[in-house]
Amino acid sequence: MMRAARLHEYTHDMSDGLSIDDVDAPQVASGDDVIVEVEGAGWCQTDNHIIEGMWEQYVPQDLPMTLGHENAGTVIETGDDVDIVSAGDQVICHPVQTCGTCRPCRQGETMYCENDAFNGLTTDGGFADQLLTGDRSVIPLPEGVDPADIAPHADAGITAYHAAKKAVNGLNPGDTAVVIGIGGLGHIGLQCLDAMCAADLVAVDIKQSARDLADDLGAHYTIDPESEDVASEVEAISDGVGAAQVLDFVGADETTALAPDICAAGGDHHIIGYGGHIHEPAQALVNGEFAYQGNIVGQYTELQELVALVDRGAVDLHTTQYDLGDVNTVAQMLEDREIDGRAVITP
Amino acid sequence: MMRAARLHEYTHDMSDGLSIDDVDAPQVASGDDVIVEVEGAGWCQTDNHIIEGMWEQYVPQDLPMTLGHENAGTVIETGDDVDIVSAGDQVICHPVQTCGTCRPCRQGETMYCENDAFNGLTTDGGFADQLLTGDRSVIPLPEGVDPADIAPHADAGITAYHAAKKAVNGLNPGDTAVVIGIGGLGHIGLQCLDAMCAADLVAVDIKQSARDLADDLGAHYTIDPESEDVASEVEAISDGVGAAQVLDFVGADETTALAPDICAAGGDHHIIGYGGHIHEPAQALVNGEFAYQGNIVGQYTELQELVALVDRGAVDLHTTQYDLGDVNTVAQMLEDREIDGRAVITP
Amino acid sequence: MMRAARLHEYTHDMSDGLSIDDVDAPQVASGDDVIVEVEGAGWCQTDNHIIEGMWEQYVPQDLPMTLGHENAGTVIETGDDVDIVSAGDQVICHPVQTCGTCRPCRQGETMYCENDAFNGLTTDGGFADQLLTGDRSVIPLPEGVDPADIAPHADAGITAYHAAKKAVNGLNPGDTAVVIGIGGLGHIGLQCLDAMCAADLVAVDIKQSARDLADDLGAHYTIDPESEDVASEVEAISDGVGAAQVLDFVGADETTALAPDICAAGGDHHIIGYGGHIHEPAQALVNGEFAYQGNIVGQYTELQELVALVDRGAVDLHTTQYDLGDVNTVAQMLEDREIDGRAVITP
Amino acid sequence: MMRAARLHEYTHDMSDGLSIDDVDAPQVASGDDVIVEVEGAGWCQTDNHIIEGMWEQYVPQDLPMTLGHENAGTVIETGDDVDIVSAGDQVICHPVQTCGTCRPCRQGETMYCENDAFNGLTTDGGFADQLLTGDRSVIPLPEGVDPADIAPHADAGITAYHAAKKAVNGLNPGDTAVVIGIGGLGHIGLQCLDAMCAADLVAVDIKQSARDLADDLGAHYTIDPESEDVASEVEAISDGVGAAQVLDFVGADETTALAPDICAAGGDHHIIGYGGHIHEPAQALVNGEFAYQGNIVGQYTELQELVALVDRGAVDLHTTQYDLGDVNTVAQMLEDREIDGRAVITP
Repeated sequence: MMRAARLHEYTHDMSDGLSIDDVDAPQVASGDDVIVEVEGAGWCQTDNHIIEGMWEQYVPQDLPMTLGHENAGTVIETGDDVDIVSAGDQVICHPVQTCGTCRPCRQGETMYCENDAFNGLTTDGGFADQLLTGDRSVIPLPEGVDPADIAPHADAGITAYHAAKKAVNGLNPGDTAVVIGIGGLGHIGLQCLDAMCAADLVAVDIKQSARDLADDLGAHYTIDPESEDVASEVEAISDGVGAAQVLDFVGADETTALAPDICAAGGDHHIIGYGGHIHEPAQALVNGEFAYQGNIVGQYTELQELVALVDRGAVDLHTTQYDLGDVNTVAQMLEDREIDGRAVITP
Repeated sequence: MMRAARLHEYTHDMSDGLSIDDVDAPQVASGDDVIVEVEGAGWCQTDNHIIEGMWEQYVPQDLPMTLGHENAGTVIETGDDVDIVSAGDQVICHPVQTCGTCRPCRQGETMYCENDAFNGLTTDGGFADQLLTGDRSVIPLPEGVDPADIAPHADAGITAYHAAKKAVNGLNPGDTAVVIGIGGLGHIGLQCLDAMCAADLVAVDIKQSARDLADDLGAHYTIDPESEDVASEVEAISDGVGAAQVLDFVGADETTALAPDICAAGGDHHIIGYGGHIHEPAQALVNGEFAYQGNIVGQYTELQELVALVDRGAVDLHTTQYDLGDVNTVAQMLEDREIDGRAVITP
Repeated sequence: MMRAARLHEYTHDMSDGLSIDDVDAPQVASGDDVIVEVEGAGWCQTDNHIIEGMWEQYVPQDLPMTLGHENAGTVIETGDDVDIVSAGDQVICHPVQTCGTCRPCRQGETMYCENDAFNGLTTDGGFADQLLTGDRSVIPLPEGVDPADIAPHADAGITAYHAAKKAVNGLNPGDTAVVIGIGGLGHIGLQCLDAMCAADLVAVDIKQSARDLADDLGAHYTIDPESEDVASEVEAISDGVGAAQVLDFVGADETTALAPDICAAGGDHHIIGYGGHIHEPAQALVNGEFAYQGNIVGQYTELQELVALVDRGAVDLHTTQYDLGDVNTVAQMLEDREIDGRAVITP
Repeated sequence: MMRAARLHEYTHDMSDGLSIDDVDAPQVASGDDVIVEVEGAGWCQTDNHIIEGMWEQYVPQDLPMTLGHENAGTVIETGDDVDIVSAGDQVICHPVQTCGTCRPCRQGETMYCENDAFNGLTTDGGFADQLLTGDRSVIPLPEGVDPADIAPHADAGITAYHAAKKAVNGLNPGDTAVVIGIGGLGHIGLQCLDAMCAADLVAVDIKQSARDLADDLGAHYTIDPESEDVASEVEAISDGVGAAQVLDFVGADETTALAPDICAAGGDHHIIGYGGHIHEPAQALVNGEFAYQGNIVGQYTELQELVALVDRGAVDLHTTQYDLGDVNTVAQMLEDREIDGRAVITP
């Protein structure tokens, strides 16, 4: 038996979303299985969204289900065919378990696997003592990296990295990149951009503390959208050209509405946060030739790349640790915007 | 003096939008100038939109202005510095006149020129006996190509080609591409796709005649959105994967709304037509990792490429010729969806 | 027991390279195993090179070994974990068996698998009644495709396709592509280019019959290098620009030496055949900014794409069938350039 | 009249290559002309190669000719059509004067201009009091940048930047990049890589001082090819994968010969230096699927990007200034490998 924080029913009351249940510990059933003792499990805005039922229409969910998709820990048992890790190895767990034989998996697009399971979203996740996953989803950690420190990179990290990597393809030295929302994902995305290109980085956030953090992490300019006009600031910073790439970690109606005014011709407005909608005339996209580019979680190989960035000290993560019993407290604090950086559950 | 079809006032009455005026013929004023005797000038949906005032908020327009941005004809005079053409050469005219020294021009992104003029949109166009343009905007025609036949390629053609060329980058053999709207632009886009990739081509149009045309021009499947469910048809055709690329030549609310249901993961829904809006939750873009990709007119070099396609017989254009005096009749017929293929004014 | 054509010792005498041995039939040993009854096994120039010992310094080879890397047939048994095929399915076999968990496999670069085995090169191949392979290497055939007809695509086909696909990225309408050597691979590469781009295709071959075949398969121009100067012909065809892409299916000293004279600035000279050497001053590459681009066998997903091309009738393969006992005859005929198209062994 | 350092005859005696002549100062003749008072003119290895006659077979050269292709200074006069600079502006001069209307210019590939002139290679350059160039070749300097400091970036800089930019496309975090030759170009290329990607950087040079410089400029590893085996060092550093990208600023027989042993599968060995030859079996390129990628000088827009990098302090240049009368001394010192960093002539 083991403890697991499980969702039994969708609710908007974050203070009472999950219950701590005693459930059977996972067993190795197939040759590719890997069982990980969870030492860190990041709490994500998406966990709140799952509790609210916001993902029900997009993916199949059988309740009760153990949440938690940002996991790292120590391997305790492996199936017979597993070569890449063995018991005792510390690993970070990509949240998606993939088949390896469908065409998307073969192309490296592991997020598009036709037979996937997503930890804590469509199958039991890692807010628990142990997690059952497989050899297609674990990455050994470099020497000296603490699982509880790196855990949030398993989702928040690679999602931000994935969008940043796409953006970097469109960023030359002298170009302008705008990052909207310097929270749990945004502060990682900003650091990834800083490590991987030489564009001028502009951080947009309504909170002074977030803008200060952006300053520390490499932003060349910050904008407070409540007291400054984002479009005219971006225009001035970019000499009238606009932002070649925009990373929107908020995804609210007001932030998606910025695109026509801040995107350079040929640029991209990346949607990563998903709080709101896009409402825009088609003509605006034609006239400005920009794109609204959706972004899902990064691929397995992108998590390898992010671990390499972490290993060289290029991406700092601000985390605070909580016990497994504190999950609902954490959910409520996040709802109340009282979490700075990332909360990590340490079962 | 020469005749020119000019817009004096924005109106929704297409039957009386332009007047045929006698105006001064253009003169060579700078070393780069080229004067073309117009032999063909395509009429475009955008001309109707301009008459309605739909572009006023996006670009500067001084009325009265001669419309007409799809021009071809014979060079009659050139400035002293012009090397690439001389009097007597037949040419097609890229609709945008560019400076050649701003950074976008230097990058080949001539549509983003910081000092551009757009024929018939921001400067006098070619519904007239003569057109004043420059050596950065004319392309010599291959032997045997009639200016009146090729004129619509100057805008309709390269716009469709431009979007198709972007789409081709994301289309492997066996992938599915969907073309929505087999009208003036769409029937060109379909042929460009057919010439440049080996994807399965699906044409969507409410008109039987348009679907028949699509069949003739290379579509492997056609869908009637009024009697069939587009999403389930695309799902069946693509074995559940969805369309890697969608070219939306309509851009209406209903067509942009198809994206979440028909785009494959990682795919693009290209916005080329611009009749309506996008209204979509950000979460849909995140979950499907697709993009709404805006598309403007193609670059000068893309028009060179399209002329090469035309020269090898890969792109047929269905045109009907009209006199300069018939411009308002043409505008009204287009409004009433009575134009099949493309109307070409022959001043 | 089953029959297998095996190499016991490297030799330059092609007429006596392999012996037909009775060996144990393969057994399913792991959950991912797939056993295929071989119905077609293409004979490749590389088989001759292996018999000569030309690959010994590049890859590990334990003799005796059953050759044959271009296989197709019917699945007769599968391991417990195999989902994508079952007994009775007709399949084509990618020649490389891959692990699926190394970083290159995860990136889709299955040819760079760190734990691979190559049929008939580093492990037993398919000049035999049965072939042992796995679920990461088999692709179901579309209805109506005969394994004996498609078998050579397993290596010749995807190698040509792989190079053509890379070349297509650099080919716009109006550009010139040169294909050198219209033999077993070259005639496939030419058809792939024709299906996937709208460039002007130039075929170069010393044999009249090969040039005639090229004409039939879509070449717009042919050059006989023995009676014409390749460089000046390409210059004339391309209006002085040169070939944006060159596919060199010969790879002899004389063909690699063409690059500086026929490659356009920024172009690529793809090395696919490997009969000879490159000897070129570094300055030539600097001045012309071209690349010598090596090309290995295509990836698993590229074989899927090629099967899609075959299924739509875009790639014809000229094959002649031979019995398993004829392998040495075939080897000698190939050495004597007496094979037109591709020889297929039908065990 | 003005002074100019001119080549009258090819020679291998560097100590007496150029003579300081009094020649007519340039005059504005066309509307696009720009005359620059030269304040810095970098001396390049290519200048020595030109004096030796090594470029005679590749480009047309009329002697006597003023050498000097790395120029910066102050605009003193402009033609009537010049908008982007005016008298008094400080500028760096791209070495190539381009037409702006050929297809390569339109594509942004200004180095492939069909009507170009190359300062100091095919037309008079900037080892002189004044340089005649045009508005397609000058870039205004940011506030506070000294022309004599930045001049070498006009060729050495953008050549290194151009290769680094291409390499960056193939470099993910955790990948290995090898820079061979940390001299005038190499030390710039290394810094560009460091600014634009997060790969592990390995510097290879036979000089201890060069390796020390590499350490200071961001190299994570250095290799002395005289005492260490480059291939096994790269293999160890990259965990057996090899270098995804190699920038060879030497281009000698021994350095090009490293490619098969140090390039990762799918990697590129960029040829920038051009002292020697490539001698390699075609099979090596096939087996390793690497490319020898030629690299010419960067485009105009790449010089803009490099100026942006310089402006943010990302690229330090080690220069020493010399009088115009010292040109032959400088040439001989470079021949004797006595120049550290870059010599700049200040006429």
